[in-house]
Amino acid sequence: MTNSDAIGYYRDLFISHLTQNQTQKDPANLYAPITYILGLGGKRMRPVLTLMSCDLFGGNVNSALDAALAIEVFHNFSLVHDDIMDDAPLRRGKVTVHEKWDINTGILSGDAMLIQAYQCFERYPPEVFKQLTALFSKTAIEVCEGQQYDVDFETRDDVTIPEYLKMIAYKTAVLVAAAMKMGAIIAEASEKDMDAIYDFGLNLGIAFQLQDDYLDAFGDPKTFGKQIGGDIMENKKTFLYLKALELAPKEDREGLLHLYSIQSKDALIKIETVKNIFLESGAVDVAKQLIQDYTEKAFAQLEGLAISDKNKTNLKQFGENLMRRTV
Amino acid sequence: MTNSDAIGYYRDLFISHLTQNQTQKDPANLYAPITYILGLGGKRMRPVLTLMSCDLFGGNVNSALDAALAIEVFHNFSLVHDDIMDDAPLRRGKVTVHEKWDINTGILSGDAMLIQAYQCFERYPPEVFKQLTALFSKTAIEVCEGQQYDVDFETRDDVTIPEYLKMIAYKTAVLVAAAMKMGAIIAEASEKDMDAIYDFGLNLGIAFQLQDDYLDAFGDPKTFGKQIGGDIMENKKTFLYLKALELAPKEDREGLLHLYSIQSKDALIKIETVKNIFLESGAVDVAKQLIQDYTEKAFAQLEGLAISDKNKTNLKQFGENLMRRTV
Repeated sequence: MTNSDAIGYYRDLFISHLTQNQTQKDPANLYAPITYILGLGGKRMRPVLTLMSCDLFGGNVNSALDAALAIEVFHNFSLVHDDIMDDAPLRRGKVTVHEKWDINTGILSGDAMLIQAYQCFERYPPEVFKQLTALFSKTAIEVCEGQQYDVDFETRDDVTIPEYLKMIAYKTAVLVAAAMKMGAIIAEASEKDMDAIYDFGLNLGIAFQLQDDYLDAFGDPKTFGKQIGGDIMENKKTFLYLKALELAPKEDREGLLHLYSIQSKDALIKIETVKNIFLESGAVDVAKQLIQDYTEKAFAQLEGLAISDKNKTNLKQFGENLMRRTV
Repeated sequence: MTNSDAIGYYRDLFISHLTQNQTQKDPANLYAPITYILGLGGKRMRPVLTLMSCDLFGGNVNSALDAALAIEVFHNFSLVHDDIMDDAPLRRGKVTVHEKWDINTGILSGDAMLIQAYQCFERYPPEVFKQLTALFSKTAIEVCEGQQYDVDFETRDDVTIPEYLKMIAYKTAVLVAAAMKMGAIIAEASEKDMDAIYDFGLNLGIAFQLQDDYLDAFGDPKTFGKQIGGDIMENKKTFLYLKALELAPKEDREGLLHLYSIQSKDALIKIETVKNIFLESGAVDVAKQLIQDYTEKAFAQLEGLAISDKNKTNLKQFGENLMRRTV
């Protein structure tokens, strides 16, 4: 199989497992929103990574399906609660749970999803169950901490770059890392390999999020999927913003601070002005280098892995495809 | 030790464990609300029951402290999220988390508490960890379902008494039952004893909640702690209301339906009128009998337990004290 065939195979396998595990239960007002959000689609990247990782380490892919489901259910739980906190009307182009129902439903159905995610591990024997559950809890708490840092940063004007990198690591990358480590746990990989695949996922996850920030400003509107300049219009303190503040000459720096202190009415002018400062300050170059560094750090983890060279190439190719999207 | 001495001992032991496990961590906006709600006090009834149950079955009380902590952290998580849903300004006489901070903080800190509750089990060996975690998840999902039924009932006018009893069982009693069963699991009691102590807790929990409904209308204002008639003013469909609708003559039935369809301005008149219908319809007598039945059903579970007669007497005395409060 080619790499993309394999990913399609994992995805289909996962979606079939997800569908089988969706039962209509009472009370309907608790469970219908869960079926709704899990049915909205998305790339299913995280569960695919769990299956892929299990496969790479010689495990039975089918035995990783429940862990993959836990990861996907948790990810969707976090979307439901985050969308309430961000007052977001849309998710994957469809109306969000708290808009379709109400905030209380979003809170309670989200809570039930977090518990259901834990229940997904119950088919594993006690030793594996404990390993998976403890990793899951550690990751879930970090995701909450990442979300809290993100909220805190909105009203802080002294956010440092290390703080920003920690925030995106917690909010996004740790779940990718845990998804891959779970596959390794189920395949009974060595401790060393488990840690290496975790670090692969963590670094690739950070690279991915930094690239997402970059594409939000400089991506191709045809392929990026989100509104270009969305972060700028929301005055979001991304890496590009923080780095530009550090590098830009005084005048640009003050211009940037001013533009990020107002709700601009002329979106196009604001977006173009800010993008120019990002470019001219050299922040874009630093960002591109950092994305490269994290990607290479991820790939360096692969060298010592006890898997075939072909599988290493596949993993690297997967990473390269992920990072090559529409820059 | 007398029974109340023992309860005081368990409570002190638990509070000391709770205090030791409260660390000030970053981000402060995530963790400060958790320290706040867990510090508001309360009777700590659920964790005390875990310790008591472990002790009764000959286990080491200290080894039950982490499970007791999980139960208390979960209970407080559910209070934080329920208070958002109910828009409650006060909890234990102090301002609620979402009022002191904001709704988003309440949601996210609550999420973190639910995860922390799971983490409390991590010091148990894998077999016990799995048993406790699976029981915890099952219980937590039931509590969510109970809360959803409670929300649904507000806008339904065809709630049946079996539905109401299921709602209070899920919303309140299953956590009491699970708290006691966890003590038995840690003490390595037999399956039969685990199930019996669960059913003891479940039936006593239902009796307790039915009595709470009764006291809300007919309790002594000096000792009950809550505003007498609060449920009536909120048009809450309690057992007394549902039973009175069933038993009252047509005129009273229509009067009750009318009073529960309006927001009355004259609290005293509404409360007195409703209480009279509750009494004259015979609903109060049925409620008292049902409380008695559930209490006896709880006590019947004790007979077959493989514990000393003295311990059985203590448990029964505990139940009697619980049910004897200020009727």
